[in-house]
Amino acid sequence: MFNPLAFIEVKRNGGRHDEASLKAFVAAVLDGSVADYQAAAWLMAAFLRGLDEEELRAFTLALADSGRRVLLPSGLQAVDKHSTGGVGDKTTLVLVPLVAASGLPVAKLSGPGLGFTGGTVDKLESIPGFRSHLPLDRFVAQVERIGCAISGHSLDLAPAEGRFYGLRDVTATVPSIPLIASSIMSKKLAGGAGSFVFDVKCGDGAFMTDLDEARRLAKSLVDLSRSLGKRSLALVTDMEQPLGQWVGNASEVAEAIEVLKGKGPEDTRELCLLLGGAMVFLGGRSESVETGKALCRHLLDEGKALEKMGQLLEAQGASSRFLEEPEKSLPAAAKRFDLRADRDGRLFRLAARPIGEAVKVMGGGRMRKEDVIDPAVSVELHCKRGEPVRAGDLLLSLYYNDPTRLEEARNSLAQAVAVGEEPPRRPLLLDRVD
Amino acid sequence: MFNPLAFIEVKRNGGRHDEASLKAFVAAVLDGSVADYQAAAWLMAAFLRGLDEEELRAFTLALADSGRRVLLPSGLQAVDKHSTGGVGDKTTLVLVPLVAASGLPVAKLSGPGLGFTGGTVDKLESIPGFRSHLPLDRFVAQVERIGCAISGHSLDLAPAEGRFYGLRDVTATVPSIPLIASSIMSKKLAGGAGSFVFDVKCGDGAFMTDLDEARRLAKSLVDLSRSLGKRSLALVTDMEQPLGQWVGNASEVAEAIEVLKGKGPEDTRELCLLLGGAMVFLGGRSESVETGKALCRHLLDEGKALEKMGQLLEAQGASSRFLEEPEKSLPAAAKRFDLRADRDGRLFRLAARPIGEAVKVMGGGRMRKEDVIDPAVSVELHCKRGEPVRAGDLLLSLYYNDPTRLEEARNSLAQAVAVGEEPPRRPLLLDRVD
Repeated sequence: MFNPLAFIEVKRNGGRHDEASLKAFVAAVLDGSVADYQAAAWLMAAFLRGLDEEELRAFTLALADSGRRVLLPSGLQAVDKHSTGGVGDKTTLVLVPLVAASGLPVAKLSGPGLGFTGGTVDKLESIPGFRSHLPLDRFVAQVERIGCAISGHSLDLAPAEGRFYGLRDVTATVPSIPLIASSIMSKKLAGGAGSFVFDVKCGDGAFMTDLDEARRLAKSLVDLSRSLGKRSLALVTDMEQPLGQWVGNASEVAEAIEVLKGKGPEDTRELCLLLGGAMVFLGGRSESVETGKALCRHLLDEGKALEKMGQLLEAQGASSRFLEEPEKSLPAAAKRFDLRADRDGRLFRLAARPIGEAVKVMGGGRMRKEDVIDPAVSVELHCKRGEPVRAGDLLLSLYYNDPTRLEEARNSLAQAVAVGEEPPRRPLLLDRVD
Repeated sequence: MFNPLAFIEVKRNGGRHDEASLKAFVAAVLDGSVADYQAAAWLMAAFLRGLDEEELRAFTLALADSGRRVLLPSGLQAVDKHSTGGVGDKTTLVLVPLVAASGLPVAKLSGPGLGFTGGTVDKLESIPGFRSHLPLDRFVAQVERIGCAISGHSLDLAPAEGRFYGLRDVTATVPSIPLIASSIMSKKLAGGAGSFVFDVKCGDGAFMTDLDEARRLAKSLVDLSRSLGKRSLALVTDMEQPLGQWVGNASEVAEAIEVLKGKGPEDTRELCLLLGGAMVFLGGRSESVETGKALCRHLLDEGKALEKMGQLLEAQGASSRFLEEPEKSLPAAAKRFDLRADRDGRLFRLAARPIGEAVKVMGGGRMRKEDVIDPAVSVELHCKRGEPVRAGDLLLSLYYNDPTRLEEARNSLAQAVAVGEEPPRRPLLLDRVD
């Protein structure tokens, strides 16, 4: 019988867990025979003592195998992308049809947004008719038929991961590289893809604010993938400022469609090309990430990605005609608040986190799982970090419906921006690990 | 409002808690606004990161002040003794009347036995009529009237300590010097005495098996007492073998009465003199521990301690005539199992822990709080460590009623003893810290 005290003691004393005991522990946490306080004590011990490569592999596998796994038909080698979460990050909406347009299957399972970052499912739900939660068999059948599908996480995929994640959130054991890596990787494994591109965000608008930490996580994800027999590649990308021109669920859908039409903000398009290039390369459709990027550029500019997006919408209950003028059918906000520059200079700061917080506070994100989102809430960025501005110029606009917490959001936005000298240049791509 | 996540993070990151936040944390654990899993995560962080002297003092005070404190009438400066728990340790039964006979008030609150060590209250409950749980006011009045009282812990003394202790027990966070010291000291503080003698047991039959660890705990207890403005002294004493000749509730009462009559096994008497001497010295009745010992020797040999024990029994519902022939009214066991030497030599090993386990297994101790104890279960030690034995000599006898788990107890006892060469000499008093 599994002995939780002896198990916790091993990690407390800096020892190693073997594969069988990690498996037994995960099973016992899931069936409740190990109490939450015992799992919490172990999480803190693991946080402070770490998990070595073998333990990390075994723990991740145990989490991934704690429920069902997506089984794609043999021959379908899907490629998946995971972002650690940022503000204004709508790349998944572009990448799924884009990479599918290259001929590679993309089976995308996505979690809800929590905290100040938005979730892909929340964004998609602002599209009229879109069915964002598919049963597993239908999800798989759609990937087989049109090459792609996007769905909210099914609860029976890696359910133990959810238990651990919930506990970490309330026991101050979130920011641990092995615990983050196992959490991400177990869900990816259960999702059934054969290779993975990781977008590790770094900056004030990401969970990782420190570049070295972000690099360590990127390396840990790539090492872990390798130890699990999966190909992967990790990009460390900037999240000091929000991605693109819009933050907020419906507005990000509109921006993503702009990118799918070969237009859109330069940084959003560039990150989609980078990640798409990496996915196409990992999936074996190009010789390098660079040639993969070129292929993606072609697919965007020729309308192939947009066409695939139309198929995706049709397959999941929406109309492809939505793509023609998305603004017309996306929910719009009734009120607007503008923030203007108080002096001439350069936009020195455009901090992602307080902007994400402002959107959340106005109802565009969740404080708790059960909160209902107002998809119309958004922030428009009129200029980006380093650009010249003059006193009185519009810096950003907040669009909202419910003014209850406007004061709080305004304070948050005021903290987000500063006009001053030219800020140090920070490239979009900070590092690459493969 | 108290923020548990920020609090846990401080300790997780190796930081310091201030007094106010420790107080708020203890209050929040007690009222349930901090969940068990959060307290558990903090306990593991505190286990691995430690608590410095100031934190330890503040945490201990917060625990001690989480409920009522015993308030002795002014002028009554009671002296208290605490043992970290051993096998066959019946010294409290001797020390309470002995030290009271010197004129020092002794207000003894005692916890139930758990695991392989016995509790004073369990032992006293084998005395017919003895009332082992007194309401606080009656407890205090009795100390005032006859100079001593013994009672089981009242639940409203340091209740937060009980919460933490219960959690530590199931989260592998027991063996931490600061957590042990704060647990012991908070209950002692709430017990209202002015000075404390600590008996830190060391050996296989104690929680501390390592001498350096035991010394560290002794030093931590003395330092903590000083920082709380209390006089104290700690003895590190041997627990490689059980104390005295008997292990088991009723039989330990009988042995204690032998000592109170000026007789009894040499080691039990010696430890009572050592601890009694230290208590008498701390209470200001002697110039040194040595002269305190001499005073105690006198009180035992002249029958003064026994007389005080008679008063204690009468005050708590039993008869002082019990002391005349205690064997006659103590519960006796129906069955007996003997273990004999298989060769000539010296008793090389007489391990305390498996002997304590054997008594527990046969019903003489608790596996769980709600277990009912059979006070008649006991082990008699026919010879002690280092003594010469011949093949066929009786080594120990187990007395029991319920044979259900006899096999297990016999295995335990067989592991406890070994005849061989002369073992390295180990004195009863291993160290003294003051």
